[in-house]
Amino acid sequence: MTAMTEPLRIGIAGLGTVGAAVAARLITTRADFTLRAGRDLVLAGVAARDRSRDRGFDLAGIAWFEDPVALASSTDIDIFIELIGGDEGAARAAVEAALQTGKSVVTANKALLAKHGAALSALAEKKGVALAFEASAAGGIPIVKVLREAMSGNRLSRVYGIMNGTCNYILTRMEKEKLSFEECLADAQRLGYAEADPTFDIGGFDTAHKLAILTSLAFGTEIDAEAVYVEGIGSLTLLDLAMADELGYRIKLLGVATRTQSGIEQRVHPTMVPKSSAIARVKGVTNAVALDGDMVGEITLVGPGAGGNATASAVLADIVDVARGVSRPPFGIATEHLVPASRAPMTLHAGGYYIRLMVQDRPGAAAAIATRMAEKMISLESILQRGGTTYGFESPEGTVPVVLITHATTETAVRQVLDAVVADGHVIGEPQMIRIEKEQ
Amino acid sequence: MTAMTEPLRIGIAGLGTVGAAVAARLITTRADFTLRAGRDLVLAGVAARDRSRDRGFDLAGIAWFEDPVALASSTDIDIFIELIGGDEGAARAAVEAALQTGKSVVTANKALLAKHGAALSALAEKKGVALAFEASAAGGIPIVKVLREAMSGNRLSRVYGIMNGTCNYILTRMEKEKLSFEECLADAQRLGYAEADPTFDIGGFDTAHKLAILTSLAFGTEIDAEAVYVEGIGSLTLLDLAMADELGYRIKLLGVATRTQSGIEQRVHPTMVPKSSAIARVKGVTNAVALDGDMVGEITLVGPGAGGNATASAVLADIVDVARGVSRPPFGIATEHLVPASRAPMTLHAGGYYIRLMVQDRPGAAAAIATRMAEKMISLESILQRGGTTYGFESPEGTVPVVLITHATTETAVRQVLDAVVADGHVIGEPQMIRIEKEQ
Repeated sequence: MTAMTEPLRIGIAGLGTVGAAVAARLITTRADFTLRAGRDLVLAGVAARDRSRDRGFDLAGIAWFEDPVALASSTDIDIFIELIGGDEGAARAAVEAALQTGKSVVTANKALLAKHGAALSALAEKKGVALAFEASAAGGIPIVKVLREAMSGNRLSRVYGIMNGTCNYILTRMEKEKLSFEECLADAQRLGYAEADPTFDIGGFDTAHKLAILTSLAFGTEIDAEAVYVEGIGSLTLLDLAMADELGYRIKLLGVATRTQSGIEQRVHPTMVPKSSAIARVKGVTNAVALDGDMVGEITLVGPGAGGNATASAVLADIVDVARGVSRPPFGIATEHLVPASRAPMTLHAGGYYIRLMVQDRPGAAAAIATRMAEKMISLESILQRGGTTYGFESPEGTVPVVLITHATTETAVRQVLDAVVADGHVIGEPQMIRIEKEQ
Repeated sequence: MTAMTEPLRIGIAGLGTVGAAVAARLITTRADFTLRAGRDLVLAGVAARDRSRDRGFDLAGIAWFEDPVALASSTDIDIFIELIGGDEGAARAAVEAALQTGKSVVTANKALLAKHGAALSALAEKKGVALAFEASAAGGIPIVKVLREAMSGNRLSRVYGIMNGTCNYILTRMEKEKLSFEECLADAQRLGYAEADPTFDIGGFDTAHKLAILTSLAFGTEIDAEAVYVEGIGSLTLLDLAMADELGYRIKLLGVATRTQSGIEQRVHPTMVPKSSAIARVKGVTNAVALDGDMVGEITLVGPGAGGNATASAVLADIVDVARGVSRPPFGIATEHLVPASRAPMTLHAGGYYIRLMVQDRPGAAAAIATRMAEKMISLESILQRGGTTYGFESPEGTVPVVLITHATTETAVRQVLDAVVADGHVIGEPQMIRIEKEQ
């Protein structure tokens, strides 16, 4: 490792919005970084595809690499910043090359960490270098540092939040402007909040990667993205949002990791949260992450979860941390001491549920549904039935929407009831089922 | 400095609720701390007044000191935890003794830092040890770490928040239950949220100390608690809270530090915040701190600002940080590079104002006030006048409350108008003036 007073030579691979923002900032506010880092931070090399593109800063004097792995392996840099993306290919190869050659790595790559986080973390530790990834979860919100360092005195029971700005933007607009999911998605794409292929965001997979990272930090478990139960927001209708509103809730796409008696439960799905809760009030592309600790109680962090500058802010903080000296394993405790996350199966999930059924408008239908609930010992907090056109939502011919809010029950019980209700032939189409999350 | 694998021997001075919680936690979850810190954390010595008191943990095997300075100077400990309190006396002497003898110090003592932070920080740096103080501002909320470490890539323009649970509890209850300030204060005292002498909390001084610490971290300035403009909440009436509510605002005691053209403005006073803002929704003893960075945008942290366990959580995180190795100066940049805070005088403060006057109920009074406003080029966003009994508030005989919300103007202009209006003889009693703070 270089001495803590020598300049730190930085190599950045990937000069998209985040990479360009990091590079520009390092160049324009170099004196500030020298104070913050206690040493000079020098942008020594960059790797990107197109050298000619104007990125708002001068490449003169900065070594140019076509190949990120060559940059990562170069002896001209001390720290490698990976902003390429993707869980394999160049990103993985370059990060491994940097660590193997004894360089600290800063990355924003949640997919890479979700898949290879444990192995990369072990390699970083073996080499005595840092693997820093503040930018990989919730963008500008420093939740990685808070979980890894500020919660050392706590046993955490839960970490949860809104970790995908695209989904929250869509849900906020649907709720406020009564626009359909499809219209809001199209707008999000037009505004650059959603990719051309939005599956990764709206399917909940982006949130799942982030949650897997936070789960490992919160519970000292090996990262296990495969264990995350994932549902996206594509099935949500304006009827559901309106019904939720009437019942005192909002619907958010949450990532939730909880310590349960049967293990660590990791889940991503549309969630009903009380309107009065802090998380319900998070609007648009803003993210929020909350944690419950046995000493501290509940802490919530709110801020921009994406965007070039906000993400660059996280990358820059990691660079300064590394410049100040590597003192912690990537996940807070030594990789060898991370325990396998004992997966709590979703069938055992306990909580309240919102169930929306399009019920045949004929005698006995409601009674039959209520009987099915009673059979499984599910008690109800509210029932809401609306005839005709509800909130501009046309019910299928001969049906009325019926919404049931259950008291705490289990996923298994709810699924069995829904199967039975569908088999009874009283409902049309797929039942909608949304889990309820309350503040502790 | 001891090697990073040897046990870290901890001495705690002050075994009140925070000290006892820290000690108990170190003892009961020792294995967890060993993982988090990468070495054993051993509670080696304690200093307190009364040895016989039951504090919920066993003192056997822990060296007992009557004198905190003796503990701080002892060669049997590596790190000194100061939880005595007070800006002079035993706390200061013990912290200085610990630093002088080459020990890292963790403290929750905002008064000590506000007064002697710069000198203690310089001493810690000179000795190559840590001076950590997460618990000194906003209790369990890790705002010190976030400002010192996570915002390295930002130039901050503002840090502000609700930093005193006692005041927020009182204001929340006044607003919700329409109880007088005096009644709510009495309840706060009964519940242990307020001291027998509540001046320090309700006068705004506690918030001022915390703000001074956060200002230094946010702007890289020497701590300057003397520069904080302070107003408490004692003058707030139910009429003001009700008027604010009608106009779309809530009243909170905020600490606000802003980078202005004329220097750093630090102020603590009752503040009108839009009901829709995140800060307006912070209820009861909860704290919230927000920061504005040029890269990250706005980040808000919400959580418990006081309480034995929440504060202990912050102390424990600092201990683990120290155990992992000292890598940063106490205020993020070397003390010698902290610049004197160029004080922005309150007279230059620019913003909107709420002004409430008890106006003589006779022709010409309102016109005279409006004329005074116009003379100083102050334009109005709203005017509200209520006759008779308003919100249960009895106006003095022959007067009516008039509330004016100004557009952005300066403190000087408002004060001059109020002086003129009072001199004109149209109002009874002291005008109420509350500054308005908007989200950026």
